[in-house]
Amino acid sequence: MTSRIEKDFLGEKQVPAQAYYGIQTMRAVENFPITGVKIHAELITALAEVKRAAALANMDTHMLPRKIGEQLVKAAEEVREGQLLEEFIVDSIQGGAGTSINMNMNEVLSNRTLELLGEEKGNYFHCNPNNHVNMSQSTNDVIPTAIKIAAYRLSEQLIEALSSLQSAFARKETEFDDVIKMGRTHLQDAVPIRLGQEFGAYARVLQRDVNRIRQASQGLLTVNMGATAVGTGLNAKPEYVERVMFHLKGQVGIPIVLAEHLVDGTQNMDAYTELSASLKVCAVNLSKICNDIRMMASGPRAGLGELKLPPRQPGSSIMPGKVNPVMPEVVNQVAFQVIGNDHTICLACEAGQFELNVMGPVLAFNLLQSLKILRNAAGVFERFAIEGLEADRERCANYVEQSFGIVTALNPHLGYEVAAQLVKEAVRTGMTLKELILERGLLTQEEIEEILNPIQMTTPGIAGERLLQLTD
Amino acid sequence: MTSRIEKDFLGEKQVPAQAYYGIQTMRAVENFPITGVKIHAELITALAEVKRAAALANMDTHMLPRKIGEQLVKAAEEVREGQLLEEFIVDSIQGGAGTSINMNMNEVLSNRTLELLGEEKGNYFHCNPNNHVNMSQSTNDVIPTAIKIAAYRLSEQLIEALSSLQSAFARKETEFDDVIKMGRTHLQDAVPIRLGQEFGAYARVLQRDVNRIRQASQGLLTVNMGATAVGTGLNAKPEYVERVMFHLKGQVGIPIVLAEHLVDGTQNMDAYTELSASLKVCAVNLSKICNDIRMMASGPRAGLGELKLPPRQPGSSIMPGKVNPVMPEVVNQVAFQVIGNDHTICLACEAGQFELNVMGPVLAFNLLQSLKILRNAAGVFERFAIEGLEADRERCANYVEQSFGIVTALNPHLGYEVAAQLVKEAVRTGMTLKELILERGLLTQEEIEEILNPIQMTTPGIAGERLLQLTD
Amino acid sequence: MTSRIEKDFLGEKQVPAQAYYGIQTMRAVENFPITGVKIHAELITALAEVKRAAALANMDTHMLPRKIGEQLVKAAEEVREGQLLEEFIVDSIQGGAGTSINMNMNEVLSNRTLELLGEEKGNYFHCNPNNHVNMSQSTNDVIPTAIKIAAYRLSEQLIEALSSLQSAFARKETEFDDVIKMGRTHLQDAVPIRLGQEFGAYARVLQRDVNRIRQASQGLLTVNMGATAVGTGLNAKPEYVERVMFHLKGQVGIPIVLAEHLVDGTQNMDAYTELSASLKVCAVNLSKICNDIRMMASGPRAGLGELKLPPRQPGSSIMPGKVNPVMPEVVNQVAFQVIGNDHTICLACEAGQFELNVMGPVLAFNLLQSLKILRNAAGVFERFAIEGLEADRERCANYVEQSFGIVTALNPHLGYEVAAQLVKEAVRTGMTLKELILERGLLTQEEIEEILNPIQMTTPGIAGERLLQLTD
Amino acid sequence: MTSRIEKDFLGEKQVPAQAYYGIQTMRAVENFPITGVKIHAELITALAEVKRAAALANMDTHMLPRKIGEQLVKAAEEVREGQLLEEFIVDSIQGGAGTSINMNMNEVLSNRTLELLGEEKGNYFHCNPNNHVNMSQSTNDVIPTAIKIAAYRLSEQLIEALSSLQSAFARKETEFDDVIKMGRTHLQDAVPIRLGQEFGAYARVLQRDVNRIRQASQGLLTVNMGATAVGTGLNAKPEYVERVMFHLKGQVGIPIVLAEHLVDGTQNMDAYTELSASLKVCAVNLSKICNDIRMMASGPRAGLGELKLPPRQPGSSIMPGKVNPVMPEVVNQVAFQVIGNDHTICLACEAGQFELNVMGPVLAFNLLQSLKILRNAAGVFERFAIEGLEADRERCANYVEQSFGIVTALNPHLGYEVAAQLVKEAVRTGMTLKELILERGLLTQEEIEEILNPIQMTTPGIAGERLLQLTD
Repeated sequence: MTSRIEKDFLGEKQVPAQAYYGIQTMRAVENFPITGVKIHAELITALAEVKRAAALANMDTHMLPRKIGEQLVKAAEEVREGQLLEEFIVDSIQGGAGTSINMNMNEVLSNRTLELLGEEKGNYFHCNPNNHVNMSQSTNDVIPTAIKIAAYRLSEQLIEALSSLQSAFARKETEFDDVIKMGRTHLQDAVPIRLGQEFGAYARVLQRDVNRIRQASQGLLTVNMGATAVGTGLNAKPEYVERVMFHLKGQVGIPIVLAEHLVDGTQNMDAYTELSASLKVCAVNLSKICNDIRMMASGPRAGLGELKLPPRQPGSSIMPGKVNPVMPEVVNQVAFQVIGNDHTICLACEAGQFELNVMGPVLAFNLLQSLKILRNAAGVFERFAIEGLEADRERCANYVEQSFGIVTALNPHLGYEVAAQLVKEAVRTGMTLKELILERGLLTQEEIEEILNPIQMTTPGIAGERLLQLTD
Repeated sequence: MTSRIEKDFLGEKQVPAQAYYGIQTMRAVENFPITGVKIHAELITALAEVKRAAALANMDTHMLPRKIGEQLVKAAEEVREGQLLEEFIVDSIQGGAGTSINMNMNEVLSNRTLELLGEEKGNYFHCNPNNHVNMSQSTNDVIPTAIKIAAYRLSEQLIEALSSLQSAFARKETEFDDVIKMGRTHLQDAVPIRLGQEFGAYARVLQRDVNRIRQASQGLLTVNMGATAVGTGLNAKPEYVERVMFHLKGQVGIPIVLAEHLVDGTQNMDAYTELSASLKVCAVNLSKICNDIRMMASGPRAGLGELKLPPRQPGSSIMPGKVNPVMPEVVNQVAFQVIGNDHTICLACEAGQFELNVMGPVLAFNLLQSLKILRNAAGVFERFAIEGLEADRERCANYVEQSFGIVTALNPHLGYEVAAQLVKEAVRTGMTLKELILERGLLTQEEIEEILNPIQMTTPGIAGERLLQLTD
Repeated sequence: MTSRIEKDFLGEKQVPAQAYYGIQTMRAVENFPITGVKIHAELITALAEVKRAAALANMDTHMLPRKIGEQLVKAAEEVREGQLLEEFIVDSIQGGAGTSINMNMNEVLSNRTLELLGEEKGNYFHCNPNNHVNMSQSTNDVIPTAIKIAAYRLSEQLIEALSSLQSAFARKETEFDDVIKMGRTHLQDAVPIRLGQEFGAYARVLQRDVNRIRQASQGLLTVNMGATAVGTGLNAKPEYVERVMFHLKGQVGIPIVLAEHLVDGTQNMDAYTELSASLKVCAVNLSKICNDIRMMASGPRAGLGELKLPPRQPGSSIMPGKVNPVMPEVVNQVAFQVIGNDHTICLACEAGQFELNVMGPVLAFNLLQSLKILRNAAGVFERFAIEGLEADRERCANYVEQSFGIVTALNPHLGYEVAAQLVKEAVRTGMTLKELILERGLLTQEEIEEILNPIQMTTPGIAGERLLQLTD
Repeated sequence: MTSRIEKDFLGEKQVPAQAYYGIQTMRAVENFPITGVKIHAELITALAEVKRAAALANMDTHMLPRKIGEQLVKAAEEVREGQLLEEFIVDSIQGGAGTSINMNMNEVLSNRTLELLGEEKGNYFHCNPNNHVNMSQSTNDVIPTAIKIAAYRLSEQLIEALSSLQSAFARKETEFDDVIKMGRTHLQDAVPIRLGQEFGAYARVLQRDVNRIRQASQGLLTVNMGATAVGTGLNAKPEYVERVMFHLKGQVGIPIVLAEHLVDGTQNMDAYTELSASLKVCAVNLSKICNDIRMMASGPRAGLGELKLPPRQPGSSIMPGKVNPVMPEVVNQVAFQVIGNDHTICLACEAGQFELNVMGPVLAFNLLQSLKILRNAAGVFERFAIEGLEADRERCANYVEQSFGIVTALNPHLGYEVAAQLVKEAVRTGMTLKELILERGLLTQEEIEEILNPIQMTTPGIAGERLLQLTD
């Protein structure tokens, strides 16, 4: 493979002749062979947009010659569209606060611009990665800005996916509204409830999660373009700052605003921890819901068997016909990953020092991953598990019939003492409570059906109202 | 010690004759000798208020005889005022979703009511812990409601403490506005900044924390009184629910509302995880700030020595005169505790199953602790560390003088190449950049002072504006 | 309340006249009103032992006058025995790396010594907290040493409690050896297993936990007495070091050794993180076991109902006769606390800087708590949940009878295709597999009983052996 | 693209005609579009080895026809060598406990075997993914076994990398043995220490980490081949189990043993949590060391400036000549990732239920990642940061000269009171302590040099010994 020689103030290095990246990318690859996982494509896209906006702003302020700038804008647009993606070879976890991501981009754009200008790669006199592509910028403003744009977009996609999942739960709330089942507390039989109410609870907590994530994502809208190194804006013209915000906002279609206090905007990463925390809260809720669903779908014979999940794939090579609840299982695992990632993000955020948090790469790696896997998991969970979910109405009804929990509703009519003795007797004989009550002539069939009317018994307000009439 | 015999459906137990608690409390003490740490007093207070409101509501709806109810209300008021606190002997970590806390309260109120009625303790016929004190209630509604009230109050106190700390930072922003110092990124000398700007960044991130905590605490306002066992409100009259909310709201002075969907309100603990997450985000920020302050206050001779913390206590028995930064250190530790507690809270929340999360006790234990220790730490940190904090202006100025970072501002005037060579020469000779520039006649003293004007150099906008004039 | 005046190099303070603690304790109380939780008594005990050993060593090396030393030893012995415990009033979370704990002890011992010498409290000329009680010591060696002694003792108690629990599981392994039940994977019916095998698995993982905790606790045996401030041993005579180790070892009855490299021994806290990590691993395992047990004990009618936990306390005030699995629930919660504490401990450990980790207080607070609550939880879990645990053999057998999972054992005899069709048919008709096979004359009753012999079918090796004979 | 039709008991699916994977892989790809990150190659390799050993064992026991088996072994060897890697397309996070990984492998091996047999892909009659490739196996034994083999190998590589890093620290201990510097506690000047001692402490804690990881990795050696579905070994011949262990052990070159209790071996994942915990402890230590090194290397002018890291890449596009400590920074980030991953692993482990932990995929994903990134980070940290690390001896010496901490050594000679006054005077005048002592004639130049002999003052034992001579 032929190569070209590039140099920086630390010396020279051979770069593959055809490569769009350059010496600093090469150094980063040598320094950081860590995860083998490349930078999230969403971050590359956003960074290309930032570079495009900066080039336009630098032309507006007459700092960047039009001849170079116009080709540079074209190059940035190509990268934004997903071209040259294989040229972004630095590792997701890297030292230097993102300088290597930034320089990888600067070098790729520089060499592509050179190509568009008809110059040879590496001939940086005509378009220099630092002087032209990175003009008026610092890693410390462009990288956080690009991370925020990428994260905001993913947040929007996540919100959409979760809202859709929420609607699916709400539809099940309606569909299962008349499925009476035993409510369980402490995994012990409690009092009857409707399956629809359970899915209504899932829908509501997920709605709050959507609200929380939306609220938390607002912090991403404040960017620090023009902050340069430490937020004092040294070497960044105010006119440039105004123009770069104008172009960037126009391009990304997101209502970004400039930080009111650029030192704060450069130093603090709380927008990331805030968002990650909201993802974690959501992950906890989703995991609880999946646990419930897996338990209700347990069986088919030696489990609860209240729900039937759509079969998605054979579950066993050794047990004929076994099908496993793989969709909630994958959501559980995604939840665990998101919760662990939140931990990493907090550690990285706490490690910020003075004017900069240099742990940005690991932070972005985890935050963007969390957003993506939650979005993806919500999507398949809805389509492959919730949409086709069915209730085993008969089984649900049998549990209520068999259980002693309904005795609670008899307290006001028979008294706590008699009710308790009925339970004891039911345990001893294996009879149901209804059978016992009828046998003993404590209540008539009509009275029992009135008192134990399942819909009324499970409706807050109505249940109480009826009780009121009966006991007053 | 004399004792009385009490019994429940599991059997009999001896209870100390003078004790206000009863058999179920005794069982809980036997079952849960775990932490040795008692229930947070704030939770006891809130639960007493809930009990008082329930008694009033039960009288309003004619379920509870006035004769009993009036003394019960009196008893609840006493406990609310902090009396009988030593009678609450169940452990902070306990099985049973808080039933033991609830029963400890029910028994204490019952026996105190008996006393007020002129009856003997344990003579529950006249006022029964379950039938009278717990009337229309379930552990599953009163305990979450009490936790939320306690947590909301502590949130308000925390918000006040953090706001006050935020103001202290803001005052330092003003006081240190003219203290020029080296900005640092990667712990390496970057470009100058003003100490006031750093404190301004601290003030701003803390302001966002206050906003986040305030926002998150709103979730606590939705309570599930009247949900009874699983949220279906079985055996709770609607009129009772309306009255108990009326009395409770009036008493606690907090704008609580009833959950729109009581099954959701009983099953989901996201109000706790959401609040805890916001505390964690704040803890991360405070820890970072404390790290910065401890580093800036390092020395006095072999450290950075830019800040002087008020001496609070002798730091060493072996090194004469050594004083340590104990206040930021304690804040760091509180932050670590809050972050760890958040982890516990998430685990507990994820472990909810079906209609109830039975891990409430460990959840409340950690959430209330986090709120209290953050509040306490913020208070002493402000009073004992930030209020009397001083800058070593001379030392700060010397670093700027000595450092090469200011060369960045010369780039537009001397060019990057010349600037880089000046740095090399400065390293070689030990001279400052200013000395070298003057020696070589590159700029005049006036020009240097104009270009390196510290206030302008560190003011976003102004710095850029000036640059604009010079280079256009 | 009368008071005395004490002073240190930062000024004067009033101290309650009767108090054994002094000015530095007062300062600490003022500085650190954080948790309201006092130092673990086990740490106070261990620190008193360290002080006693140091006093003896200082007498041996003729640095401490016998007249003072002998009374000081007596005072330390009193504190070791638990006297004056109420004089230790500093908070568990405090800045200063434990200096305030150390000074609280130094002051209490000093004043008690003065009392024994017939002198007035505060008259430190005759026995000074720093010069006499803290002689040859630094907070940086005595506090870590005391923490390690306390933690080691608690580890031994924990190991004993866990070993006892492990034995209880092993007894259940035997007791339940003949209880055939459905094995479950993915919460779906898999193939039969014996309940004893499940408890055997619990016993084995717990045995490994005991081994891990024992192994990890060995790191606590290496102490850094004589390190003084930073591990260089400045101002500590070698003879003192030799003598203090001699006395301390003799007294505590634990095979402590001196760190080979005292700078390492002073700087690094990995003995704590290592131990805490082993506790966390154990907590994870215990939590999984408790989840299993709670699920198997779910019901009584609408759950799995395979296990019956001993009833420990009434579970509900509203549902007659309801009993909840409070013992495994409290173990779950303890597990969550231990896991969260481990997080705090890691954060505190990572925050060490240079020669010392100043986050020792929060670290000790959490580590000792984890040890204690795990020990306590293991004890009550064994006594109140495992000892009296019973199996519902009939229910277990019914599940096996009803389930399709046993079809797996028929594969070699009927072929996968026929077996799969039998399952389909069973689902359609509601018949059991056995009934279907007999009806269709596929196998005789004898063959079925031979093939589906539950003991053989669930015994690794035997099952295989039989298969071998049948298919070869 | 042409395709073939495959079917399983859930229906039919089109598979790309050229693909080696089949219908179940297709289902998994559809079900789990989660991370976009493929299975770790090390796991693919290990699984191929397991499949090869199983094929050999199945031939030994005459269950698998030689004609098929021999080609299957060949196919497995190809995959082991890294061929067909692009055919493994299932996601790292997936539901189903690894069934999809297993089936992806079974299908690829099946189709490659068909190819070697001269049959068409998809013509599974001649070599079936379930019947032939997966013969005598279950996902529940082969996947954990493969994970353990992969993890053990990576552990060995990690141990080698950490041992090498440990040696590098040890070399620096020697190299820096005579570099006297200020010891720091609480970031405050304490007493002198030698830089070599600090690196000696780093070397020692890392040695313990190596020991801990080695110890923890032993748990990986116990595998559960032959357990099949739940550990009862149903349908696995004992002879097969013996042979598969024989072949597997021979091939992988790792001293694996069969679990003594296969139900335990299938159900419990503590080998993973134990190993991950040891990685976490190591990560905490490495992060602390990196923090120290970054602080000591801070500057060059406005920081401590005691260490000089080898420059690895330009640190800033805006600040000429700025070089950042990118190597310790990347290690910090890797540490944060490992700590977060440990959290995920614990959550996944705790979620195990009954006979199986179905969260294996996320567990393996995180564990193998942690092992790899720690190994990688240790390698580059050693080569690019520690090997070429230099001390600024002059700066270190100046701090000692300037600092008051050395006054501690004068206590025994001048008394605490005089020493304390000297410090006050030094602060007032800006003079050094040595200058003041000479000016006041308190000690002669010779005495000062004797007492403050830096080597002796920093050597435990010697320091004490000398003190002994002087004061006795």
